Amino acid sequence: MSTNVHRLPNRDTALKALYDEIGAKNMFPFWATSADVQNDEIKQLMATSRAVPFLWRCAEDIEPILNRAVELVTMEDSERRSLVLVNPGLAPKRATVSTMYTAYRLNDADEIMPPHKHSPSAVRFGLKGKGNFTGVDGENIVFGPGDLVLTPNDTWHNHGTVGGEQALNLSVLDFPLVETLNAVHFDHHYAEEVDGVMVPMKQQSERFPSDYSQRIYGYGGLMPRFASKEKRGAGFSSPMFVYRWDMMRELLERHKDWDGDAHEALMVEYIDPTSGQPVFKTITFFVQMLRPGERTLPLRQTANLLVAPFEGKGHSIVDGQRFDWNAHDTLAVPGGTWCEHVNGSDKDPVFLFVASDEPTQKKLDLYRKWGKTKDDGIVRLV
Amino acid sequence: MSTNVHRLPNRDTALKALYDEIGAKNMFPFWATSADVQNDEIKQLMATSRAVPFLWRCAEDIEPILNRAVELVTMEDSERRSLVLVNPGLAPKRATVSTMYTAYRLNDADEIMPPHKHSPSAVRFGLKGKGNFTGVDGENIVFGPGDLVLTPNDTWHNHGTVGGEQALNLSVLDFPLVETLNAVHFDHHYAEEVDGVMVPMKQQSERFPSDYSQRIYGYGGLMPRFASKEKRGAGFSSPMFVYRWDMMRELLERHKDWDGDAHEALMVEYIDPTSGQPVFKTITFFVQMLRPGERTLPLRQTANLLVAPFEGKGHSIVDGQRFDWNAHDTLAVPGGTWCEHVNGSDKDPVFLFVASDEPTQKKLDLYRKWGKTKDDGIVRLV
Amino acid sequence: MSTNVHRLPNRDTALKALYDEIGAKNMFPFWATSADVQNDEIKQLMATSRAVPFLWRCAEDIEPILNRAVELVTMEDSERRSLVLVNPGLAPKRATVSTMYTAYRLNDADEIMPPHKHSPSAVRFGLKGKGNFTGVDGENIVFGPGDLVLTPNDTWHNHGTVGGEQALNLSVLDFPLVETLNAVHFDHHYAEEVDGVMVPMKQQSERFPSDYSQRIYGYGGLMPRFASKEKRGAGFSSPMFVYRWDMMRELLERHKDWDGDAHEALMVEYIDPTSGQPVFKTITFFVQMLRPGERTLPLRQTANLLVAPFEGKGHSIVDGQRFDWNAHDTLAVPGGTWCEHVNGSDKDPVFLFVASDEPTQKKLDLYRKWGKTKDDGIVRLV
Amino acid sequence: MSTNVHRLPNRDTALKALYDEIGAKNMFPFWATSADVQNDEIKQLMATSRAVPFLWRCAEDIEPILNRAVELVTMEDSERRSLVLVNPGLAPKRATVSTMYTAYRLNDADEIMPPHKHSPSAVRFGLKGKGNFTGVDGENIVFGPGDLVLTPNDTWHNHGTVGGEQALNLSVLDFPLVETLNAVHFDHHYAEEVDGVMVPMKQQSERFPSDYSQRIYGYGGLMPRFASKEKRGAGFSSPMFVYRWDMMRELLERHKDWDGDAHEALMVEYIDPTSGQPVFKTITFFVQMLRPGERTLPLRQTANLLVAPFEGKGHSIVDGQRFDWNAHDTLAVPGGTWCEHVNGSDKDPVFLFVASDEPTQKKLDLYRKWGKTKDDGIVRLV
Ligand SMILES: [Fe+2]
Ligand SMILES: [Fe+2]
Ligand SMILES: [Fe+2]
Ligand SMILES: [Fe+2]
Ligand SMILES: [Fe+2]
Ligand SMILES: [Fe+2]
Ligand SMILES: [Fe+2]
Ligand SMILES: [Fe+2]
Repeated sequence: MSTNVHRLPNRDTALKALYDEIGAKNMFPFWATSADVQNDEIKQLMATSRAVPFLWRCAEDIEPILNRAVELVTMEDSERRSLVLVNPGLAPKRATVSTMYTAYRLNDADEIMPPHKHSPSAVRFGLKGKGNFTGVDGENIVFGPGDLVLTPNDTWHNHGTVGGEQALNLSVLDFPLVETLNAVHFDHHYAEEVDGVMVPMKQQSERFPSDYSQRIYGYGGLMPRFASKEKRGAGFSSPMFVYRWDMMRELLERHKDWDGDAHEALMVEYIDPTSGQPVFKTITFFVQMLRPGERTLPLRQTANLLVAPFEGKGHSIVDGQRFDWNAHDTLAVPGGTWCEHVNGSDKDPVFLFVASDEPTQKKLDLYRKWGKTKDDGIVRLV
Repeated sequence: MSTNVHRLPNRDTALKALYDEIGAKNMFPFWATSADVQNDEIKQLMATSRAVPFLWRCAEDIEPILNRAVELVTMEDSERRSLVLVNPGLAPKRATVSTMYTAYRLNDADEIMPPHKHSPSAVRFGLKGKGNFTGVDGENIVFGPGDLVLTPNDTWHNHGTVGGEQALNLSVLDFPLVETLNAVHFDHHYAEEVDGVMVPMKQQSERFPSDYSQRIYGYGGLMPRFASKEKRGAGFSSPMFVYRWDMMRELLERHKDWDGDAHEALMVEYIDPTSGQPVFKTITFFVQMLRPGERTLPLRQTANLLVAPFEGKGHSIVDGQRFDWNAHDTLAVPGGTWCEHVNGSDKDPVFLFVASDEPTQKKLDLYRKWGKTKDDGIVRLV
Repeated sequence: MSTNVHRLPNRDTALKALYDEIGAKNMFPFWATSADVQNDEIKQLMATSRAVPFLWRCAEDIEPILNRAVELVTMEDSERRSLVLVNPGLAPKRATVSTMYTAYRLNDADEIMPPHKHSPSAVRFGLKGKGNFTGVDGENIVFGPGDLVLTPNDTWHNHGTVGGEQALNLSVLDFPLVETLNAVHFDHHYAEEVDGVMVPMKQQSERFPSDYSQRIYGYGGLMPRFASKEKRGAGFSSPMFVYRWDMMRELLERHKDWDGDAHEALMVEYIDPTSGQPVFKTITFFVQMLRPGERTLPLRQTANLLVAPFEGKGHSIVDGQRFDWNAHDTLAVPGGTWCEHVNGSDKDPVFLFVASDEPTQKKLDLYRKWGKTKDDGIVRLV
Repeated sequence: MSTNVHRLPNRDTALKALYDEIGAKNMFPFWATSADVQNDEIKQLMATSRAVPFLWRCAEDIEPILNRAVELVTMEDSERRSLVLVNPGLAPKRATVSTMYTAYRLNDADEIMPPHKHSPSAVRFGLKGKGNFTGVDGENIVFGPGDLVLTPNDTWHNHGTVGGEQALNLSVLDFPLVETLNAVHFDHHYAEEVDGVMVPMKQQSERFPSDYSQRIYGYGGLMPRFASKEKRGAGFSSPMFVYRWDMMRELLERHKDWDGDAHEALMVEYIDPTSGQPVFKTITFFVQMLRPGERTLPLRQTANLLVAPFEGKGHSIVDGQRFDWNAHDTLAVPGGTWCEHVNGSDKDPVFLFVASDEPTQKKLDLYRKWGKTKDDGIVRLV
């Protein structure tokens, strides 16, 4: 700092008074450094909250709690029994990373919930039990481990279990993002037209065969014109509502000897087959296969990720911190961190289910991606 | 005409002289009626050429000629042995409808042609023989009856036969459209880099496994990120180069009891799986299934169609004119005509392979479609 | 040709018979060379028609004819008095280049024509007289020399003259392109709702102030939300219907000392201000300024051009052929030709009004452009 | 609630223990109601932070503080002297609404700051003084009251004052949104190539004339092809960097007698003239004119707004709360609130400068808008 600046004699005192007044008037002095600030509010403003890398363990922490909750909380008490993962860096905001949250849900046998819809988009990914049930826009979907079911923005859906056994699944929602946009809305008043009159209903009537998503949209490169003219997915999300694990796994296994990508191994994205785009406008989903012994090179991207190992075990290193995971855990990988994944086995593959806000970032021209090379150099990838 | 118009006494003579001069100066008087025109050139200008509905028969007319050509024309004489269907209303223009032409091609056993590329986009659809061969951008495709192979705008490809037997296929090209746009270009100088030097080649090297199109793009709703970063299809056409008949047929058979569309029965479009769009920017392709005994209601559209029955027999009525067809024939259905299709059998399905310039018309906001109702009313469909 | 090919002894005779049969059956042998073809139809098929570079002169040829037509043809005889420029290479097709035609139209004082609409898109560009009139979608536009008025695809419009003097203008239409697509339709039954009933009308009622296009869309970068919610231009063409010459000229004059482009000098495109795209989906328009003494380097593109000098004089060289032009002439520059323009004056600028089918070519991924360098090298520009 | 539910005897105790464990393990029980929760962390999680409607007053609160800051904080201390408006409902987050913040900045005479760039997009809107200066991508812009200057995502810019007098402006940034996406990056190392070497620079060299934005993009409907081939605005924001107040005002005054919109009066959006889209991908800007005595009907939308009166005085009612404002104040209108504006004068117009995150919401299909009718009904507008 130049020495010939004329400093007022009482500058420090004046500055403190100024900071106090600025805080009281709901403003922040955008030149202040922590050195010259004593005002509490302003100190607090300077420490922004940021998501941290974090791992939630399913078998050790989540399942025991859900099992106790099944006993304590019935569907009479609440229509859901979900645990939302709260990032320690973002609390008290209900957010696992800054744009999404994951919830684990244990449904008791044959529970059934009424239909509702909302502007946040959600998926459910089956973890345990074959009898997960979700009705979406009149397509009644029963799903098991590894199957992915969409409940898009503004689409009526109801959840439950069929078949006499408990079922465990995880949901991912773009709720924190939609909340930031002040655009959350819910609707619980489901009705159908009966004899010309709208009648409130506890269940959606079946309007599509239960294999509609596969039979119409599952033939890559072929698109039936006789598919429903009805606007599915509210017209702006994928009209394919369920993606089956056996198909995803077959595709990945078939390429297990391919080179893959040094930073991403073998990744497959779930897409809207009518557009080739992600299933939602906001967030997207992948399964990532790590072959036996495979280790990815460090990758950094602006996108925020939720990584849920589905099969196998291993660890990830996020900004230098090691997280050892097993199947069904969830790892938060905030945007801007360096992340690498390691398959912990030399014999078995690892499959990771991954959620990302990449679509939002790309639409806003904010997406960037960098990778480290083997010799620790950094290259811009996107 | 009002009677108080002052007519020049020599008006007729003057008008004739005027028309002669207009014709000589390469202009057309856009008020003339055939009554007052004697000038030959102007008479000719008033009679615009238009495609007519027309049927070419494969077994009766095309195959006999091709068989004779196999004897008379060898690959020493020409690198192709194709018959282009010329619409009587458009001759001398090589065009089956105003934007596309179909060519039938009989390759003798084990013929092989050198690589080339061009701005017109083409498909080949297998009719007879299992050994049709097309190499596209380094993917070596062997195909049989009902398989569809793309050779897109600006994509290197070479044709031939493998396996020791003759093979018959039909091609559809957007050549007349590209010619109207004066945008036709060809390139026959294929070369590959060998040790840093470009070397002319008679064959493309294989750069993709021969099942690449199916293994990467055939899983509806799932899109590998480990697919080639190489720009396939020159970056603006489908990167899926072959669509197999068994998959198309399975999809259609699976829905044979569905309602379908009164004007279109069961239609499936071939799409670019990365965009959900037609495989080319200019023209698109369908298979249309007529169930046993099915008859479509009359449909009129601005799009020009080429309809090639692939299985079964029946007839179509185009602007009142009946065309009885068998498998492998080609029917020209010019835009603006009313067309209905009738399956001639009560037991067997009909499968029609259909080409259309609908994508061009939609991009230019010129596409329209009308249908007749059962009671002969007319409704605008698009 | 290899010498050990076994030739049939009667090959020539057999081939000729084959060609005759192919011609009779409406096909073309796509291996034939002019050497081995005698069949007339096939010879004709081999000589495709192509537009040629050509110049039509206004003062010498067009105006004298139109003046005689004014006397011979009244609005009682026809609702138009237009001369369509017919390219000698494309006759008998009414086309100036393969996708567009230009018509010159002389309206007598105070003539007025009834409303109509059509799928071809058109513009009118004023040449002489201040009283050209076109009503478009309820905006009554009076225009003079250099003003450009749109009558887009599917938009009601009516033409005429106001103010007691003759007016000369030129039109450019995408008619040949729309005709190739079999998508031409016309509607002459204009009607408006009066007291709940549709009543046929000879004139459109005024629904917009006559300066609407400028006052709403003429402020670059500023877009009123209070503009009409009514769909102007049928929803897919520019809602700005008139572009004034004084504004275009001011913009060009203001940059007369800029470098410009070696191949294109100073070009300004007319755009749809709500999208930044060309005013029509099919064709686009420019004014090109050649500064005193300026000569462009040769340019070749797939797009077809119609070049109408509006001010000044000079010449163009198209594929080696020189065309000397004056204001109001029209030069056809078919796609694929090399073209350069030369301002014939060292003191005065030249302004060329240019029409191009570039938008269609770009949508279909067929557009390409090359330029020559000063030392006669060739560079790909697009 | 059904009475035959079997409640565990110690259910309340067990539930409290469960909640404690859930909180400790960074989860949230998504069935809990405030009635059955005592755990502090979970109570806090249940109370989400939301922006509130709030008014900051320029003359009373902001200017006095800035004037004191000018004395206390020199450019030696910091390269900026800005007050960020912090919404009481969102503190400690630096955010005026949940996606944007406004900062007021007073530059002393002839201060100049070094170039930098960042992923958040910003605008500056002149309030007082004619000598505001911003260099953007080599265009040196001097601006006064009502002029809007863009500093888009990833675009080098530097701020300052010229001409010997203080200048006051306000900035709006999408910083909180970009922060939520973890996609904030900054770069302060500006360099230019000099003799083939990159040299760090304190100033950007002028590469465009200072009136470039107006002369090239200010002619509505006309787009020069001779505009710079250089990618302005990093290729995804508007290449027009300054919008002048006199043009905006002329456009609005010219329509002061038009009907306008009952909910929005007369609104004009700043657009990218090459696309017709908002100037940034994330946020957009308007000037809204309230005619003398005008009062808008209540409007509710998901978009978050910052409303800064620029001329005139009046009040707004947001969710029933009245805010009286004067020129240069800023009002936060969070998404989801009902808002109406009232011009406080019967003689003078009011001009409001408005920022909105509508573009982000539309891209994500989250935008909705409702209006009240005169008789207090509610209609969905978007
Ligand atoms: Fe839900
Ligand atoms: Fe739910
Ligand atoms: Fe070819
Ligand atoms: Fe070929
Ligand atoms: Fe017309
Ligand atoms: Fe006309
Ligand atoms: Fe900045
Ligand atoms: Fe700044």
